[in-house]
Amino acid sequence: MTDDASQASDTSDPVGGPEPAGLADTLAFLVELDRLKLVERRNFLADGSRRENTAEHSWHLGVAAAVLAPFAAEPIDLATAITMALVHDIVEIDAGDTFAYDEHLNADKAAREQAAADRLFAMLPEAMGAQLRALWDSYEAGDTPEARFVMAVDRMAPMVLNTEEGGTAWREAGITRQRVEGRNRRFIDAGVPHLWGLLAQRLDARVAAGDLQSET
Amino acid sequence: MTDDASQASDTSDPVGGPEPAGLADTLAFLVELDRLKLVERRNFLADGSRRENTAEHSWHLGVAAAVLAPFAAEPIDLATAITMALVHDIVEIDAGDTFAYDEHLNADKAAREQAAADRLFAMLPEAMGAQLRALWDSYEAGDTPEARFVMAVDRMAPMVLNTEEGGTAWREAGITRQRVEGRNRRFIDAGVPHLWGLLAQRLDARVAAGDLQSET
Repeated sequence: MTDDASQASDTSDPVGGPEPAGLADTLAFLVELDRLKLVERRNFLADGSRRENTAEHSWHLGVAAAVLAPFAAEPIDLATAITMALVHDIVEIDAGDTFAYDEHLNADKAAREQAAADRLFAMLPEAMGAQLRALWDSYEAGDTPEARFVMAVDRMAPMVLNTEEGGTAWREAGITRQRVEGRNRRFIDAGVPHLWGLLAQRLDARVAAGDLQSET
Repeated sequence: MTDDASQASDTSDPVGGPEPAGLADTLAFLVELDRLKLVERRNFLADGSRRENTAEHSWHLGVAAAVLAPFAAEPIDLATAITMALVHDIVEIDAGDTFAYDEHLNADKAAREQAAADRLFAMLPEAMGAQLRALWDSYEAGDTPEARFVMAVDRMAPMVLNTEEGGTAWREAGITRQRVEGRNRRFIDAGVPHLWGLLAQRLDARVAAGDLQSET
């Protein structure tokens, strides 16, 4: 972006002058991020009408982080937790969504996502890029209270939608109630104590309705 | 939700016991919010493949609030700004999206959205409901630095997508470059100084390409 081009518009207003360093790069990053709306996840929306995309999932996580913060296992910084929730999946723009229960795809997920993080966060002005990359690294490592909290919320979200609409994605993949619990419960317990009890009720109701397989 | 039902799951773990007051209501609120993913906005995604929904738009705003915060006109509290961005449009679950340039629909927009806010925020535990309702009221009134900043970001977002994909929604409605500027610039200038210069370049490029009408 050149100053010449911006002079085509009204420059009589002081806020219409040349932009501060980094503003154009920040805008380009936001345009690039629009592609997350095109990444399809495995689970369906609560009404079962279509699969969820990763951008709207990330919005749901951000709101969930805000309203579940009073129930967090450890004291958390809210701005850190919500921002982490909003950016934790942007690497899927390059790496795609990896179904949590797909062990084959999960084998090289980390390498694909690291490369995507390298590219995407570098689009931002250096200080902001480093700050958001640190949040993303922390989420992946699970090494802060915010990371453990957001991980719990991220594990909860598709469980809520699956149990709401009838578990279509689990049924498609032959996932049992035990596998859902085995994969998710420890993360949920670590971030939001007591939440598992409510989720277990939803799982049990789906098993009782014949929508979700149980190994027992 | 009753404690009896939660006893159907494993209660040997201390975090599996009865949930704290408000956790079940918070979960019900999050299920209800899933409907925002079904609300279609007028503008298209950056690649023009389909119209945007309000949930993914709200995610984009939340990220934009985080990365544009260093460019805000006034000091802002980041957690407040991002949370405001994430919830400012949830009233569209009941009230639908109102196209910014539709003066007929905008006439009773406030009343429809107030009723929706009354219903939705009351689903939450009282303290959290009051806190988020206050953010929503503040956004509507534009009476805090965070409200003015989020308003600027909200005005920017569809302009960026429209100018990226070719202005389909503007063309459908016969919106001119002057009308875009007249409706949005003052809000953008008030929240993120210098941003207008970059947006004006994008509008000018669309006018030059013949995608956006100009009255001059």
